[in-house]
Amino acid sequence: MSETIVHVRLDHGRAYPIQFSRLQTLPYLLGENGLRKGPCIIVTDTNVAALHLEAVRGTLLEAGWGGLTEIILPSGESSKSPQLLQHIHDEALGTGIDRQTPVLALGGGVIGDLAGFAAATLLRGLPLVHLPTSLIAQVDSSIGGKTGINHPLGKNLIGAFHQPKLILADLDLLQSLPELEWRSGLAEVVKHGLIADAGFAEELSVNWDSILRRDRSIIRRMIIRAAEIKADVVSEDERETSRRAILNFGHTFAHAIERVAGYGEFTHGEAVALGMRAATKVSAMLTPDLPYETIDSLLKRLPVRNSINHLDLTELIQAMYYDKKVQSGNLRLILLREIGSAYITGNVTEEQILTGWKFLLHP
Amino acid sequence: MSETIVHVRLDHGRAYPIQFSRLQTLPYLLGENGLRKGPCIIVTDTNVAALHLEAVRGTLLEAGWGGLTEIILPSGESSKSPQLLQHIHDEALGTGIDRQTPVLALGGGVIGDLAGFAAATLLRGLPLVHLPTSLIAQVDSSIGGKTGINHPLGKNLIGAFHQPKLILADLDLLQSLPELEWRSGLAEVVKHGLIADAGFAEELSVNWDSILRRDRSIIRRMIIRAAEIKADVVSEDERETSRRAILNFGHTFAHAIERVAGYGEFTHGEAVALGMRAATKVSAMLTPDLPYETIDSLLKRLPVRNSINHLDLTELIQAMYYDKKVQSGNLRLILLREIGSAYITGNVTEEQILTGWKFLLHP
Repeated sequence: MSETIVHVRLDHGRAYPIQFSRLQTLPYLLGENGLRKGPCIIVTDTNVAALHLEAVRGTLLEAGWGGLTEIILPSGESSKSPQLLQHIHDEALGTGIDRQTPVLALGGGVIGDLAGFAAATLLRGLPLVHLPTSLIAQVDSSIGGKTGINHPLGKNLIGAFHQPKLILADLDLLQSLPELEWRSGLAEVVKHGLIADAGFAEELSVNWDSILRRDRSIIRRMIIRAAEIKADVVSEDERETSRRAILNFGHTFAHAIERVAGYGEFTHGEAVALGMRAATKVSAMLTPDLPYETIDSLLKRLPVRNSINHLDLTELIQAMYYDKKVQSGNLRLILLREIGSAYITGNVTEEQILTGWKFLLHP
Repeated sequence: MSETIVHVRLDHGRAYPIQFSRLQTLPYLLGENGLRKGPCIIVTDTNVAALHLEAVRGTLLEAGWGGLTEIILPSGESSKSPQLLQHIHDEALGTGIDRQTPVLALGGGVIGDLAGFAAATLLRGLPLVHLPTSLIAQVDSSIGGKTGINHPLGKNLIGAFHQPKLILADLDLLQSLPELEWRSGLAEVVKHGLIADAGFAEELSVNWDSILRRDRSIIRRMIIRAAEIKADVVSEDERETSRRAILNFGHTFAHAIERVAGYGEFTHGEAVALGMRAATKVSAMLTPDLPYETIDSLLKRLPVRNSINHLDLTELIQAMYYDKKVQSGNLRLILLREIGSAYITGNVTEEQILTGWKFLLHP
């Protein structure tokens, strides 16, 4: 099987690879990336453990890795808590680790964020390896070094930047992904096209039916390109001081939807799909020649729930500003100036934002 | 009053200053170091708050800083807990912060470590400013970016490297330091001389009486030189991959003493003073021409408790290896090859270590 490597370049000449290959190559890749054979910590959740943990364990043991500590957590967003972070700390420290002991995050976005933050904070930083098992993790959340947990006042408010040594993305794992998760992940893929690559957005549109069917050759190409875009954007701005914020296209609306609906009611991808439709509406108000219909028809093809008209407008707007109150500062939005090009702006009126919301509530 | 700046140089051309000047220069220095006027978080403890919080608050408000959030914690090592870390997170997030909001750590080593770790983990990293109020914090713990909290299995096992933007050390604050803290801090000062600067160690010996009296001109010179040594060592090795470990001279013994006696029974400085005596004894076994008597007589002048003969030898040795079990790997010690020059070695026999302990127990 062919292998593809995408390089994520960081400040000061540092870099790490995203390796698209089979899970069975893990021991080889750990060695290639400077990790020495010895004890290691595997963090995963119950769902993923049932599907893939045995394969990971088997391949490591066969290659002579020993002292595996397996930490299996409940699946779902609520695991990103101080309690489960502390549970990982306790388990890892209880088994004897040193600063070279790698933490392998085997799972989707939640496991990546949580295990990544545990790795960032154990002995002031252990080497981290992502083994993303969901579409969203392979093209988005495992790339870029953001780790963290949630706080009652908002998502991801406690965390650290901690770059992995290696991301190993096995595309075959995605064939067993539940349909809703596949579809949610596609929202971030489409986002990458819209903010950074018009040709890629066009290709997605053309191949849409094959993508929904998870045609292997089509989705391989799609995932690698989506990961490349994310890698390029974070390479330019490792710690999100400016440019990197374009990855939040649709997310300010999405976070408000998730909060008002109650976390877990909408998947993150569903909320992002809706948020991008509102943000595109606002973009078209500021850029009248934006090919609005082309973009919105692509977004409408994301087969996720397209209605939020059971939610309250006032609450949504409050939630949007609340997000900003916690992190003070002004409300800044990511908008499109054309397909494949996004920008950050603080010049959006409350009325324009209102129009975006109304569009979602009464399409 | 004269000002002195010591620069701590980091990897990739980054750097930050240790500024020896009055607390009143804080607003000016914040601006000089790129921190923008606005809300800020002050973390301190009850003891320090009673002495210095009003001065810090006054100087900030007068200069036009507003939205100060003051977080006052119990004093003592037990504050380095997940609970108080979470308390800082809650308070800081509850008042509205963004990624530019500075965290000011006003206190000794405990506050520096705890507030530093809170700064490292709020919104994936807030700017940190150390305002060290103890001798140990001014010459040692505030310098080098180590932050963290304790875990039931050991001290500082949870944490992060998070470099400050600025350290402002006001030497006048040390005049009000309790005697025991002053004396404990001197252990780290002496350590810096022994591991890195023979001339400085000699000067300490010559000026010892003035140092104990806290003669301003003498201790000014002493503290600046001690801070310089620490800054130089950490500059060579930001994340403690090798060279930096020499700063742990005496600490492997000291950690075992602290653990067996029960945390808080000995101050850290007292334990380090004892640990250095044992490590010097071991050093002399490996380097017969080491001027052992000269070193030990300097260490004996550290006016801290010099006896641990109420502690159990077997427990001390177990604790020493336990420390290493948690962090696996072999027992490595920092030894002296001459005054002003330390090295790291794994070639110490159990018998030599036993001799070090017996020397402390039955001097």
